[in-house]
Amino acid sequence: MATWKELGEAKRDSVNALIPKAWLLPGPLPPPTEQRDVTGKYIQQYLTPREIEITETDAVGIVKNTTTATWKAREVAEAFCHRAALAHQMVHCLHEIFFEAAINDAQLLDEYYIQHGKPLGPLHGLPISLKDQFHVRGVETTMGYVGWIGTFEGQKGTGKEKVYESEMVTELRNLGAILYCKTSVPHTLMAGETINNIIGYTWNPKNRHLATGGSSGGEGALIGLKGSPVGFGTDIGGSIRIPAAFNGLYGIRPSSGRLPYEGMANSMDGQNSILSVVGPLATSVGALKLVIKGLLSQKPWLHDPLVSEIPWRDEKEQEVFDVVKAGSGGQLVFAIMPDDGVVRPHPPVRRALDIVVKTIEKLGHKVVEWNPPSHARCNDLVFKIWAFDGGEDIHTALGLAGEPMCTPVSSFYGVKKEQYTASQISRINVLKRQYQKEYMEYWNSTASSTGTGRPVDAIISPLAPFAAARPDMAQFGTGEEKTKRVLPGLSAWVNLLDYSSAILPVTLVDKGIDVVDVGYTPKNPTDEKIHRGYDPELYHGAHVSVQVVGRRFQEEKVLALTEILGDALGKHVV
Amino acid sequence: MATWKELGEAKRDSVNALIPKAWLLPGPLPPPTEQRDVTGKYIQQYLTPREIEITETDAVGIVKNTTTATWKAREVAEAFCHRAALAHQMVHCLHEIFFEAAINDAQLLDEYYIQHGKPLGPLHGLPISLKDQFHVRGVETTMGYVGWIGTFEGQKGTGKEKVYESEMVTELRNLGAILYCKTSVPHTLMAGETINNIIGYTWNPKNRHLATGGSSGGEGALIGLKGSPVGFGTDIGGSIRIPAAFNGLYGIRPSSGRLPYEGMANSMDGQNSILSVVGPLATSVGALKLVIKGLLSQKPWLHDPLVSEIPWRDEKEQEVFDVVKAGSGGQLVFAIMPDDGVVRPHPPVRRALDIVVKTIEKLGHKVVEWNPPSHARCNDLVFKIWAFDGGEDIHTALGLAGEPMCTPVSSFYGVKKEQYTASQISRINVLKRQYQKEYMEYWNSTASSTGTGRPVDAIISPLAPFAAARPDMAQFGTGEEKTKRVLPGLSAWVNLLDYSSAILPVTLVDKGIDVVDVGYTPKNPTDEKIHRGYDPELYHGAHVSVQVVGRRFQEEKVLALTEILGDALGKHVV
Repeated sequence: MATWKELGEAKRDSVNALIPKAWLLPGPLPPPTEQRDVTGKYIQQYLTPREIEITETDAVGIVKNTTTATWKAREVAEAFCHRAALAHQMVHCLHEIFFEAAINDAQLLDEYYIQHGKPLGPLHGLPISLKDQFHVRGVETTMGYVGWIGTFEGQKGTGKEKVYESEMVTELRNLGAILYCKTSVPHTLMAGETINNIIGYTWNPKNRHLATGGSSGGEGALIGLKGSPVGFGTDIGGSIRIPAAFNGLYGIRPSSGRLPYEGMANSMDGQNSILSVVGPLATSVGALKLVIKGLLSQKPWLHDPLVSEIPWRDEKEQEVFDVVKAGSGGQLVFAIMPDDGVVRPHPPVRRALDIVVKTIEKLGHKVVEWNPPSHARCNDLVFKIWAFDGGEDIHTALGLAGEPMCTPVSSFYGVKKEQYTASQISRINVLKRQYQKEYMEYWNSTASSTGTGRPVDAIISPLAPFAAARPDMAQFGTGEEKTKRVLPGLSAWVNLLDYSSAILPVTLVDKGIDVVDVGYTPKNPTDEKIHRGYDPELYHGAHVSVQVVGRRFQEEKVLALTEILGDALGKHVV
Repeated sequence: MATWKELGEAKRDSVNALIPKAWLLPGPLPPPTEQRDVTGKYIQQYLTPREIEITETDAVGIVKNTTTATWKAREVAEAFCHRAALAHQMVHCLHEIFFEAAINDAQLLDEYYIQHGKPLGPLHGLPISLKDQFHVRGVETTMGYVGWIGTFEGQKGTGKEKVYESEMVTELRNLGAILYCKTSVPHTLMAGETINNIIGYTWNPKNRHLATGGSSGGEGALIGLKGSPVGFGTDIGGSIRIPAAFNGLYGIRPSSGRLPYEGMANSMDGQNSILSVVGPLATSVGALKLVIKGLLSQKPWLHDPLVSEIPWRDEKEQEVFDVVKAGSGGQLVFAIMPDDGVVRPHPPVRRALDIVVKTIEKLGHKVVEWNPPSHARCNDLVFKIWAFDGGEDIHTALGLAGEPMCTPVSSFYGVKKEQYTASQISRINVLKRQYQKEYMEYWNSTASSTGTGRPVDAIISPLAPFAAARPDMAQFGTGEEKTKRVLPGLSAWVNLLDYSSAILPVTLVDKGIDVVDVGYTPKNPTDEKIHRGYDPELYHGAHVSVQVVGRRFQEEKVLALTEILGDALGKHVV
């Protein structure tokens, strides 16, 4: 019988074999020390000018061309398939390749257009990449588990293998989207880096010393390399926002119940205290809006029992634009949360926050302080909820092939623990609700101090203490901290509160400016570990982003605010 | 130290002592064999014509008068306090009395009107009764537990005792409502009858041989006696709908997250697989709409983290009225579900369903069959979810005073069982979601057979196999069935599916028509128990109702449909 290693390699090889020979790189990639950044000019060398034109157009621009038959869907699909193939060879960002089906679908769309004189839907011909939790006919879903190869979510002979499709996949097809690849994840999904025993490690294309992030890490890397204009990830503690931020992308974690998760593979499925949510990552805010509006036009609440009936609300966007138009008499008010009181972010992250503050002020809007209920209390609840089953689900999934657990996961889930009982879970749920209520009322209370009569419009905060994670982060700890995971407190509070949060790319690490704060005395062992992990030389050139956090179900508002700030930052994702 | 019995009696006496002497009944009530029905003329004998006029006006009529200062809020409050006091003496429907505070509040509202020349809000001067899960300043919340007397949810010295108010209480006060009493519940809330060791048994005022239902049983009895025009109950398995139906009232179980539950006492709080929801019971559909619209105007999603941002949508109502106006070309389509395949309802319930079917057809609308996924499978999930903590919460609460568990609860929760683990709970949550999805797609599939292009507009079904529960139901079982509880499968499926469902009162039991079906062969022991529990003589005169079930968050539509059917039935609640 084949070992997990052999099975993983065979799967990896079978996927790589789906890359057309003409698209293979001529030789091995130079090491990161020689070629740190493989985005932009580096990847462009393997593409035609026409392919570059297409793949460097954002999703809004693409559908403008494909829904008017200015561009053929087939040509667009081929260009993105080519670029995705290159991206995968550079940073290992794909789990499944189905270029042939995609090009065939695109051809059918082109024929549809000729026959009907109109596009199939608002996403006619738009290539969309999917995290490897989506089930798509014709291909597997391994979610990075060797034991899931040849199965449906670990089970054999269900009849669903390679046939069943997730709800959102159906809706995207209805809208005219072209599906062509599924992207890499850390097995278990519970990590801010992307690594598994099938495709190995997914590197950050902008700085190959660093991680692409996770768990939607393949999405981050692929879109970062413009091998996809927009893709879908999931987020239970930062898994959309972390890779979006690490790759200089826009991305949004919607509130749970806004977009359909129905029929997707997951870890610890059925844990319903903090629900994983699905949301897009892209190179523009417009792209995020485009796909969210498209999906909501499909009335997903009629096909997913957990989706709430909240259509896209133009008026929520308009309220923001109206404030801006009103000028100084109608300011937007942003609360700045520089950290969570537990760890201090690295110099480039602090600088990014300063840039955003100055931009807000320059626009004539207002920044205020944010003194919310204790985030340490929030983190404690999050980490308990993630541990409800003591690792049972994860150990079972890895046990199918007897494969080892990757390092970023093992510090939290390595040792199986006792399961929580119903009473213990209920108690945590009550504490969670009480925390949400306190946070909500704190937010309400800001109406009295913003000067606008409204509570704070959004919170601006880092979503991680660093520009991107370092694969070798463990070495910076001492004692117990050495093996302890740096938990994503700066992103996961949004999940506990079920807020809507978008990533705003701000700048790049500059070793000349972002020097080490040598005089800093860390507040605690975790803070020290983070502090010692910053190396300007290593981080140079990496993307630095922040998050724009709105209240529950405020996706329209959060995107409007992110667009305003993004435009003002003059940020064009490169 | 006082025994639970002494403590319960002392509490009961202290509440009764708050009834003004002038409002005490002259003597003990005749037995039910002599005076079965204490509604209508019977209770009217103790009221003035003016008091009768006020208390027999529905909530819409009341606010029409109070918001225009045609009626003084104080006079209205006094009339309802008086009638509520009488009702309580007749059927034991109150847990807390705060008439003095209410009359004082009403006086302030009258002064407000004089000062501002307008009402405080849309519910200005409307008396509203509340199930004893709401915290209201000045009074306790015992939820029927002796051990909760003098505490806040069983805990002493929290500082919240008699001070803290539930979120909805604040919102109702903002709207101008007058709060004056809290109504009885079965301790634990997990019963379709209302009984506890403080106030004893709450009887059905229309037929005192029967139960008022539960768990919002005090609401049902009080509003049935017109001691309240509208009140709020909660529903985790039928607890709003059962007492509404047993008392011939309109009532709605909204989907979870539509109305604010924040800050209410509860059983097994934190169990979040099937959430208890809050909703109104009243003498008219208009009253239900009035209070729901009022609450939604308060934007409860800004004060309750579990409420979804879905304002009242007039257009959802209008869509229904537009179909009706369009005439025969635009029919409404109702699916009829005569039973859940487990038990056959009693003759009067089957007759009520026939009446509704004929009414629908007479109106020119359409009835179709309903063949959904197995309800037995649904029931199994519901009963497992209710047993997640093995009875821990309930036993702890009863243990505070060492009081005995009442019979309707003990057959299910009498013996403490092992708790479910996190993995087991997750598994149930997945099965629940799969069932919801199947049911949803079955509902969607009806679009192809309704003839309107739309799926079925609503399901009409009994919400219980009987017109009302019999307190002595246990005696009709044999063997194991004797001690086994008749579980509310006909109501609880709505909770698992999180559908919106309103009660439509239809008729009264008529012993001359609703004769025993002597030739019937029961399908199973539970069915036999139900069958043998029907006695036309005993049931004569009881209310018979059905439920109108809509999809998730379709409260506007469900109420519009219920109004149309209610008007056509010519049903004026008596």
